[in-house]
Amino acid sequence: MRLESNFGTTVIEQDVEHAPRNDWRQWLIGRPLQTADAPHQTIGKAVGLAVFASDALSSTAYASQEIMMILAIAGSGALGYVFPISIAIVVLMAIVSISYQQTIHAYPGGGGAYIVARDNLGELPAQAAGAALLTDYILTVAVSISSGVAQISSAFPNLYAFRVEIAVGMVFLVMLINLRGVKESGITFAIPTYFFVISMVLTVGVGFFRYLTGSLGTVVNPPAFSVEGAIGIVTPFLLLHAFASGTAALTGIEAISNGITAFKEPRSKNAGITLVWMSSILGTLFLGVSFLAGAIKSVPSEAETVISQMARTVYGSEGLLYLAIIGGTSVILIMAANTAFADFPRLSALTAADGFLPRQFTFRGSRLVYSRGIVALAVIASLLIVAFQASVTRLIPLYAIGVFLSFTLSQAGMAKRWWKSGHLAADEKVVERGSTLTLDRHWKLKMIINGLGSVCTLVVMFVFAATKFKDGAWIIIILIPAVVAIFSSIHHHYKVLAARLTLENYNTPMRVSHNRVVLLIAGVHRGTLSALAYARSLSADVTAVHVSIDPLESQKVVDKWNAYGEGTRLVVLDSPYRLFIEPLMAFIEVLLKNRQPTEVLTIVVPQFVTTHWWENLLHNQTALMLRFALLFKQGLVILEVPYNV
Amino acid sequence: MRLESNFGTTVIEQDVEHAPRNDWRQWLIGRPLQTADAPHQTIGKAVGLAVFASDALSSTAYASQEIMMILAIAGSGALGYVFPISIAIVVLMAIVSISYQQTIHAYPGGGGAYIVARDNLGELPAQAAGAALLTDYILTVAVSISSGVAQISSAFPNLYAFRVEIAVGMVFLVMLINLRGVKESGITFAIPTYFFVISMVLTVGVGFFRYLTGSLGTVVNPPAFSVEGAIGIVTPFLLLHAFASGTAALTGIEAISNGITAFKEPRSKNAGITLVWMSSILGTLFLGVSFLAGAIKSVPSEAETVISQMARTVYGSEGLLYLAIIGGTSVILIMAANTAFADFPRLSALTAADGFLPRQFTFRGSRLVYSRGIVALAVIASLLIVAFQASVTRLIPLYAIGVFLSFTLSQAGMAKRWWKSGHLAADEKVVERGSTLTLDRHWKLKMIINGLGSVCTLVVMFVFAATKFKDGAWIIIILIPAVVAIFSSIHHHYKVLAARLTLENYNTPMRVSHNRVVLLIAGVHRGTLSALAYARSLSADVTAVHVSIDPLESQKVVDKWNAYGEGTRLVVLDSPYRLFIEPLMAFIEVLLKNRQPTEVLTIVVPQFVTTHWWENLLHNQTALMLRFALLFKQGLVILEVPYNV
Repeated sequence: MRLESNFGTTVIEQDVEHAPRNDWRQWLIGRPLQTADAPHQTIGKAVGLAVFASDALSSTAYASQEIMMILAIAGSGALGYVFPISIAIVVLMAIVSISYQQTIHAYPGGGGAYIVARDNLGELPAQAAGAALLTDYILTVAVSISSGVAQISSAFPNLYAFRVEIAVGMVFLVMLINLRGVKESGITFAIPTYFFVISMVLTVGVGFFRYLTGSLGTVVNPPAFSVEGAIGIVTPFLLLHAFASGTAALTGIEAISNGITAFKEPRSKNAGITLVWMSSILGTLFLGVSFLAGAIKSVPSEAETVISQMARTVYGSEGLLYLAIIGGTSVILIMAANTAFADFPRLSALTAADGFLPRQFTFRGSRLVYSRGIVALAVIASLLIVAFQASVTRLIPLYAIGVFLSFTLSQAGMAKRWWKSGHLAADEKVVERGSTLTLDRHWKLKMIINGLGSVCTLVVMFVFAATKFKDGAWIIIILIPAVVAIFSSIHHHYKVLAARLTLENYNTPMRVSHNRVVLLIAGVHRGTLSALAYARSLSADVTAVHVSIDPLESQKVVDKWNAYGEGTRLVVLDSPYRLFIEPLMAFIEVLLKNRQPTEVLTIVVPQFVTTHWWENLLHNQTALMLRFALLFKQGLVILEVPYNV
Repeated sequence: MRLESNFGTTVIEQDVEHAPRNDWRQWLIGRPLQTADAPHQTIGKAVGLAVFASDALSSTAYASQEIMMILAIAGSGALGYVFPISIAIVVLMAIVSISYQQTIHAYPGGGGAYIVARDNLGELPAQAAGAALLTDYILTVAVSISSGVAQISSAFPNLYAFRVEIAVGMVFLVMLINLRGVKESGITFAIPTYFFVISMVLTVGVGFFRYLTGSLGTVVNPPAFSVEGAIGIVTPFLLLHAFASGTAALTGIEAISNGITAFKEPRSKNAGITLVWMSSILGTLFLGVSFLAGAIKSVPSEAETVISQMARTVYGSEGLLYLAIIGGTSVILIMAANTAFADFPRLSALTAADGFLPRQFTFRGSRLVYSRGIVALAVIASLLIVAFQASVTRLIPLYAIGVFLSFTLSQAGMAKRWWKSGHLAADEKVVERGSTLTLDRHWKLKMIINGLGSVCTLVVMFVFAATKFKDGAWIIIILIPAVVAIFSSIHHHYKVLAARLTLENYNTPMRVSHNRVVLLIAGVHRGTLSALAYARSLSADVTAVHVSIDPLESQKVVDKWNAYGEGTRLVVLDSPYRLFIEPLMAFIEVLLKNRQPTEVLTIVVPQFVTTHWWENLLHNQTALMLRFALLFKQGLVILEVPYNV
């Protein structure tokens, strides 16, 4: 590092030895990385699909089942509606995908909902998008991991009782991997994603072939399915409710628009093509699963997933191919959680840099990752999993509102952007933080496409909120505004502080004309006297203060002070109630009241030096208590002098 | 308060307004008391009996039952041994009482086991006695409260399921009463104690009368008593085991010797007579209960106490007299816990003053009581009650070892004392802390009496430890040495510290020749500049230090420093691993290594002033982290300058 300097200031660049210590953290997450080590790799379309699609594709593992869970309320006859509802969802998916295509080309620097809303709609919508996305990433972790564990316990029913423990363990495993820092590239991601895609395509393909040839049959020994209390009537509300559950299939579709910078040039084009691939695979698999689930008369259950029922029916046994699809599904679900672990810390760092979250979230840990965001995500997601007992069905009502809110805001922002574009002069050019805006010839069409997407997702959001309100959606409806309120008050704090600290209109340098030093003494001994020596080096105006709790002890202090105090003024504060902090505070208040503007009051507290931590328990932590009692008073400095004996 | 002073030192006595605030604590425990308010009342024999006897007398409520619990192992036939075993215990009680008579006369200033052992046997036995007594007071609370709750739930069986909650609630109630400060006098104590004594005497008397007239009969509907698995054979071990359980009757007998100073003059004589009264009542009631328990064929049970069975058999109904004895027994048991609440804090303050426990235990709270000891006792006793589910039978094995160890040490100390007395010249006089020692004509006889008491209680302790080892006594056998080890290491710490701080051989006053000031800066703003002004007032040798995590940010800092830093030297520490504390520590280490003996290094940390506590979460707590990282380095002072903007 080379820093420039001019006269009057010496800049010394020092590289003292301070390599981080080798402790348990290094063992767990690996040796620290230097800032200069940050990788700058880019990826192609095939790897890009693997990296960004796991979240979206993984929802094929549970979306059909969640539709069935709702329809089952009307009895097993209602399960025939699974396929039509799935088609409606795929249409919605297509609209959203086309809308996002435009975002990708307009924001080659990365166009997540937060950035698009911030640049085009303003501060409040940006905060809402940020709150929605952060909530959503947390739920992605909880839902994906819970669903992954459900797949595993479908194959190994004995593990069902331990699903919460396994799920929390998985969350912390993914957290550790992310604290180590995952490179968003390479075969680590490609192998499991393609393995999942291939085994899904194979299963759906074989299933479809056997259906056409009439040899498919239905599920053997389906899980227990209680039709007791089924209402038997399919109401429009029920269909909307089932549709809302199925929209979980759309989660993760925005991932590519966040990560455009990771693609090889021409990155917008590559990212756009990858989005088309992803949407096509997702739509096909989702429709396939929904169709086969109906064909084999599968039954929704927490004990065995629909994927597991489908696989064992298609292959006719629980052999290798069955285990392959179960394994592939479990792994892709856990990788979907991993996507959230990549996005949540990045977004929290971005909002923190904008002053909506504590600045600490912008700090990159020893492995160059935003470690505080990673840990925060793991902790909150684990709490959710425990609270909801790792049940996907109970978590789903909380899930999609945030997703659809961010879709809506993102696409509304794009529509607004096209409108602005249409009102620019032909040669005008507006450079914003994330992109460059020029007149677009097709701005009206593009505005309509994004506008349509925005309206569709807004309607779905309301459908979702209404149909799932009492199942848990109300939590999110309260939570998101609450998070926005927190963002705002944090932002307010930073703004006020910056205004108070600014050097604009700063003319006369501050100066300290007089330093009044107060030395606290409990007894008179070598420690006190070394503190006295220090206090006298600070100022000629030193007052020793002793709080008297026991008159006999205080007389000893006074006598010793006469002998050793070098004539320093001593004030004895009588404390009839045996309090320590309070009389001192009262005394200091009086001194502060008579303070001149350029005068400073310094409190010197002698402090024991202990060799072992537990020895601190043997002493009153006066200095620490005083620190918290006095720290925030104007014109007051607290200072601890260790006993140097 | 009037303190003497001489030339060279000004003593100011200040009485700034600092009356303690009126908060929830005042509401709970009452307005604070001044040190001068400490009461100096003394009490007569009748009140003295009420104050000091509740612990001892209350053991009649469970001692007989605990003997029966053990004998029941050999089947209901073995219960006939209750009375003979009780006689043996009363004989032991007589020996101990006579032995303690001598202590009372030798230590008119108060002769608890700790003081007697400390003055006559040395440091280690004193620590052992202290550990035994403190353990014992904790168990007194747990056992008495549990037994009190057992009495209540005998009368109201519905409460049995909530016994742990009720017991813990009682402990905290007694704690609150003690934090308010109980005056050890007056009718508060006398009424319940005498009510209990009278109702017990009445019950035993009526029972004995009906027994003699043949109208007593046996318990109607005794609680379920399982003889299944009863071994049927009465072994000597079983008898010793039952005897050991019964020795719980002796607990509390030492209370008077601790509290001699509370008596009216001639206090030793008054205290001695009170001890005789107490032992007589205790012995009589205990024998009476044991006899009647056998006569009515009562059965030991956790669900209904023997006292309850006896009372309803004697009175033939569960009417007013039955409720009177149950109520009286419950109250006296809770008062016995109260005795421990008086003794534990006093003893812990005493051992703390001797340097065996943290000094904080000597602090008297706003109500002039040793509040820390009171709270510590309540917390530990509650944990015990929860761990042992408020079962007296499960707690008893932990109980008496501490009591008997302190009896043994106390009486051995007395024996040693008589031996010393016998070897003094006729006119010689040794003044010790607690008493005056002169030649005693009867020293041999007195030595034999105390020696006999000591040997008896030692033997009982071993019997107890052996017979109850696996029931839980092992916990105490490990715990007491562990506590002694803790005492020793605390004592060592204070001794070493005192040696290092002493002003003996202190000649040349310390002085500070040079103050090297290091000012930490993260950015350059008004806060930094006010800290700079302060730093420059301390010393001409100021170095600003900036830890560079982001080169772009650092360049801004350097540029601003050039403009506003008033030419102060700036050191930029490059931190490639984005660490903050570590590079700083390394830099400071280098400065410290080159330090002159009379040079001091001062670290100035600018500190945000926040209005709300939560705003601290929005800033790195650098100052606090540095405090803990650097506090204990030699020759280093840390100083926080609040941003005064």
